[in-house]
Amino acid sequence: MDLQNKQVAIIGLGLLGASLGMALKNAPVRRLGWARRAETRQWCIEHDAVDFTDDDVKAILARADLTILCLPIPAITEFIICHAQDFKPGSIVTDIGSDKGCITKVGENILHPLGVHFIGSHPMAGTEKNGCEAAFAELYDNAEIFVTESSSSDPEALDTVESFWHLLKIASVRRISPEIHDNLVAHTSHISHLLALALTLAVLDCDNAEEEALRYSGCATGFRDTSRIASSSPVMWREIIENNQSAVVDAARKCGYIYQKIVDSIAQGDFDRFESLFARGKELRDRWIDYKTANRK
Amino acid sequence: MDLQNKQVAIIGLGLLGASLGMALKNAPVRRLGWARRAETRQWCIEHDAVDFTDDDVKAILARADLTILCLPIPAITEFIICHAQDFKPGSIVTDIGSDKGCITKVGENILHPLGVHFIGSHPMAGTEKNGCEAAFAELYDNAEIFVTESSSSDPEALDTVESFWHLLKIASVRRISPEIHDNLVAHTSHISHLLALALTLAVLDCDNAEEEALRYSGCATGFRDTSRIASSSPVMWREIIENNQSAVVDAARKCGYIYQKIVDSIAQGDFDRFESLFARGKELRDRWIDYKTANRK
Repeated sequence: MDLQNKQVAIIGLGLLGASLGMALKNAPVRRLGWARRAETRQWCIEHDAVDFTDDDVKAILARADLTILCLPIPAITEFIICHAQDFKPGSIVTDIGSDKGCITKVGENILHPLGVHFIGSHPMAGTEKNGCEAAFAELYDNAEIFVTESSSSDPEALDTVESFWHLLKIASVRRISPEIHDNLVAHTSHISHLLALALTLAVLDCDNAEEEALRYSGCATGFRDTSRIASSSPVMWREIIENNQSAVVDAARKCGYIYQKIVDSIAQGDFDRFESLFARGKELRDRWIDYKTANRK
Repeated sequence: MDLQNKQVAIIGLGLLGASLGMALKNAPVRRLGWARRAETRQWCIEHDAVDFTDDDVKAILARADLTILCLPIPAITEFIICHAQDFKPGSIVTDIGSDKGCITKVGENILHPLGVHFIGSHPMAGTEKNGCEAAFAELYDNAEIFVTESSSSDPEALDTVESFWHLLKIASVRRISPEIHDNLVAHTSHISHLLALALTLAVLDCDNAEEEALRYSGCATGFRDTSRIASSSPVMWREIIENNQSAVVDAARKCGYIYQKIVDSIAQGDFDRFESLFARGKELRDRWIDYKTANRK
């Protein structure tokens, strides 16, 4: 499907949905938008995040050639189930959820028999904030996007969803199976949140006000960045982790062993070992940063 | 001591030393600077990080009313021992090292009998980079500074070192005993580095090129920030951790237990527990961010 002048519906206008609308401002598509709360729809019209909205989501879905579900993970599958009959036949539905196994299964099983194509997407973009007020047009800049490819994916729909993401200033789109995706994000995204949370609780959960005052002073930019994503939404992260339980537990345990190895090297006074672990980590991270810098647009 | 028109010597012109010189540009003091390498001294003169330098460090120390040792931790104590006789009698010596127990002991024991005052300092400022080329005038902006107070601290010297730091746009200066300081930074700074390192090794140390390519794509801003300080200098961090071994091991083990508790809640499918831990972490971190924002200058 050529997206030129097509109608693209963004369902859910939080941080990811409203930012997506803003990023599409100069793209050759008509941006339809819908959110449950009237105030959110109003805000997005006023801030030019979407071109058109309607109280009734059915009126939006009936027009849309491509629908992007920018909702929390359980709401994505719920929405697909409740509104299966409302999508335009022949249209394409995708999403932005960080879980792909369950969402892709529900999307394909429910929508494909109705002649609506489902392709899962997961843009590697976000901040620790949420809500449309936190949205900004650059959120997707240089992001890498995963789109799910399975035996029941329609090749043309897959191409269209890829083309859609290329309307933004993203780094690249990569096709991936839902299972490999979910194992991947357990490593690249989910365990970071567990570590940031553990750090925050270890440092800021204090026994008394005097200790807290000292800790507040003693925490600087290193702590700020390492703990940043601990300020994310607890409800959202519960949903993400709950939907990826076994992959997260495996990745988190592996990371726990490595942490233990590092602490052991210090406890044993084996600082040569500690330094060589640190040097390996620095080498790996510096190489990744070089890759990200080279792939910036 | 009134610092007006006094000579202040910065010994060591790496990230912290050169940035300190830059930040003092408009302060009413004369900035003397010295580094081992001639190219570094030259760079700092050319980039207006210091007003004056000399090949011979003795010529610098003989003039300085206040000397700030901006060297790696072992080099700070070595420098004090080697150059004890070269500091101007009646002058004050401080440092920027993140260890305060050992440095303060050496500084006081060696210099006080010679009529030179030693007060330890630790500005909570830095980045993962090093070297004068990474220096910038704003590095100390909004930083909190710790200065050591012990039974042998000279009250006037303590006041002078405090006044010195207030020449910068810092948030505050706090007096602290060397022992309490070292336990504090184990929590607020050192364990962040161990977690960032564990995360980097868990995510980027891959079994094959295909896995690495996927991981490179899958890592986004969350990973970038949580792992940032794993790109710090391995040699510097070996020195820091080695000088604070027991406090670091205690804090790191405590953090390890908390991490284990979080992972257990997921493994047991107790997502109510997981969500409440996450909510507590978010509450604590958001409160700290509010504090930092309110104390910004």
